[in-house]
Amino acid sequence: MKLEEPQEVLLLGPGPSPIHPRVLKAMSWNTLGHLDPEFIEIMNEAKELLKYVFETKNQVTLPISATGSAGMEAALVNILEPGDKAVICVNGVFGTRMADVASRCGAQVIEVEADWGSPIEPDDVKKALEANDDVKIVGIVHAETSTGVLQPLEQIVELAHQNGALIVVDTVTSLGGIPVSVDARELDVVYSGTQKCLSCPPGLAPLTLNEKALSVFRFRKNVVQSWYLDLTMLTRYWGEERFYHHTAPINMIYALYEALSIIREEGLQERFKRHKLNSKALVNGFEALGLQMLTSEPYRLPSLHAVKIPDGISDADVRKKLRADYRIEIGGGLGPFKGNIWRVGLMGHGSQKENVNRLIKALGEIMQPMGYNCSIEEALSAVSRTYQ
Amino acid sequence: MKLEEPQEVLLLGPGPSPIHPRVLKAMSWNTLGHLDPEFIEIMNEAKELLKYVFETKNQVTLPISATGSAGMEAALVNILEPGDKAVICVNGVFGTRMADVASRCGAQVIEVEADWGSPIEPDDVKKALEANDDVKIVGIVHAETSTGVLQPLEQIVELAHQNGALIVVDTVTSLGGIPVSVDARELDVVYSGTQKCLSCPPGLAPLTLNEKALSVFRFRKNVVQSWYLDLTMLTRYWGEERFYHHTAPINMIYALYEALSIIREEGLQERFKRHKLNSKALVNGFEALGLQMLTSEPYRLPSLHAVKIPDGISDADVRKKLRADYRIEIGGGLGPFKGNIWRVGLMGHGSQKENVNRLIKALGEIMQPMGYNCSIEEALSAVSRTYQ
Repeated sequence: MKLEEPQEVLLLGPGPSPIHPRVLKAMSWNTLGHLDPEFIEIMNEAKELLKYVFETKNQVTLPISATGSAGMEAALVNILEPGDKAVICVNGVFGTRMADVASRCGAQVIEVEADWGSPIEPDDVKKALEANDDVKIVGIVHAETSTGVLQPLEQIVELAHQNGALIVVDTVTSLGGIPVSVDARELDVVYSGTQKCLSCPPGLAPLTLNEKALSVFRFRKNVVQSWYLDLTMLTRYWGEERFYHHTAPINMIYALYEALSIIREEGLQERFKRHKLNSKALVNGFEALGLQMLTSEPYRLPSLHAVKIPDGISDADVRKKLRADYRIEIGGGLGPFKGNIWRVGLMGHGSQKENVNRLIKALGEIMQPMGYNCSIEEALSAVSRTYQ
Repeated sequence: MKLEEPQEVLLLGPGPSPIHPRVLKAMSWNTLGHLDPEFIEIMNEAKELLKYVFETKNQVTLPISATGSAGMEAALVNILEPGDKAVICVNGVFGTRMADVASRCGAQVIEVEADWGSPIEPDDVKKALEANDDVKIVGIVHAETSTGVLQPLEQIVELAHQNGALIVVDTVTSLGGIPVSVDARELDVVYSGTQKCLSCPPGLAPLTLNEKALSVFRFRKNVVQSWYLDLTMLTRYWGEERFYHHTAPINMIYALYEALSIIREEGLQERFKRHKLNSKALVNGFEALGLQMLTSEPYRLPSLHAVKIPDGISDADVRKKLRADYRIEIGGGLGPFKGNIWRVGLMGHGSQKENVNRLIKALGEIMQPMGYNCSIEEALSAVSRTYQ
């Protein structure tokens, strides 16, 4: 049976996020050759726009031709060599993944842990750096998609640099929604994904490295174990030389270009404000429904909200009804939070007042017949008051 | 300055190839979540269609979430472990790349070479296998995109199997245009790309492994060095379990689904016939223009044609004029053939009589004022006669 185009679903899960119609349209632009002069112009513009969004002047700023996790792998595989020491901060799925990827690069991984749902304590990073000489990198997740934790970076960056280590930062769920400020914060290696606050379909992983990171890269003793992710060749394709490496995913680059153009048109600061305001409205709505947030300010992400599932309410039933009757997707919990939390994204194009209202209303309407006691009207006015 | 959608270019280079309008449309279908039931249905269908195109019953048949070269890396990195011996056949860019990737997996690479433009001799593979014990894989390119060589596989597959080695085959430029016949030929690990004879934008790398290859994979001693390409987790995401690994490039999978549907509607055998016929017409046209093919039958690919640039004609001038005045892209030579050959693809949706005529006419019109003596009329009737 021939399948048809799926009807729209409002994507309020942990990503992919709702795509702007202009970006979807760009996905179907005429495919050009990967060395075509018109395509190269689009590549160049996409690169400049990525610099704008990362807030960096880094020459090496480009999208890896694969999804966000490949961005993580690219960041680590180009920097780490067998035997290198890597301090990796772990307080959720993506920190855990980072430790896994680093160890596959042959690094000696020193994990600094915090409870899932809590930020990493700078003091713990300090201890790990004091206990280990010659740490090459400190890896940390800026926005932990599995728990909704926003990680303060300043102190940990300072500790890394004081100890001669590079800081590698996962901004998959922050870039374009929350200030990442690569240059101002002196972040050395930073990667992201396209399907969160950039509101582009999944398929690319923006990556940026500063001069300090590049000089570490240039003085490697061993060849990079991944051919596909090796920056030696990638930078020649994305640089002036246009040296053929692989065939870039042309139409994905169109979409990224268009998504980033929309961000520049809105302005980064405006976009950050919008994410903050709608997040506040959502939290107010949740709390007025009697729901409890997993994390508290200032560690709560405005792009991804972890909210506790009330006693007696079935995770699966609510999410199935939301999807089937309201065509809204939200995410379930992962690891220790499986069945205990929902993860609600308000990312990029999805961070809108209308979406907050739709979700709060739908959740109320679904949970009331399940015996959950709440006032939808009150919740909606709590949302509404946020915008006054 | 805001860039707009590029006008259509007729892609007759080494890929990407012309995209069917239905496939471009599918690129902009509403993005769904990567675990959404409707998306999973599309994944399942895409997987079944991939089996159809690969002509295999292999359970593990899936698209890697990155471009063709990542398919090569996935094929090798999951099978090879440090110290393993890999016989790699090298007669062009992609064999060279395969040797590079295999060595980055820590394998001891034994290269079997042939001149660029000539096929690999089974006898040379035999010698390499006799001279080396315990060879784990023989890697070979079925359709060498850099030279237009179609590699006969049967004898080399037999030699590999007689010596207990797996055969790993690059079908980037053959899948969907030339019989690959994974099961009938007993190919163990086969990968491809979407942007050639499948006529889908670049961005995915179809991969298939048979049971023999999977058992080698399952008995690995070491963890796969690439997290992103590790089949342990990828098969759990693409299998019944739907275990979250990475966020699949949703819209690319839509496009792949649609491109494969079009192939099934046409029928593989019909599609192979079409590629052969249009290729013959193109070669007749080239020869009637007085141009010489680099490779001869039966080693000439019907999907990618290497044609010698006549003396006194500038490669760059012709290709620039083709692109600027006719909006046609063809490819230049690589490595030893830089400036000496053009690479002309007739792949998938691009393999059409009308495109053959357009190119032959355009080439004649461009070269005549450069002092090249040819009859466009005669060339076009040579093309035309092919179809009678």
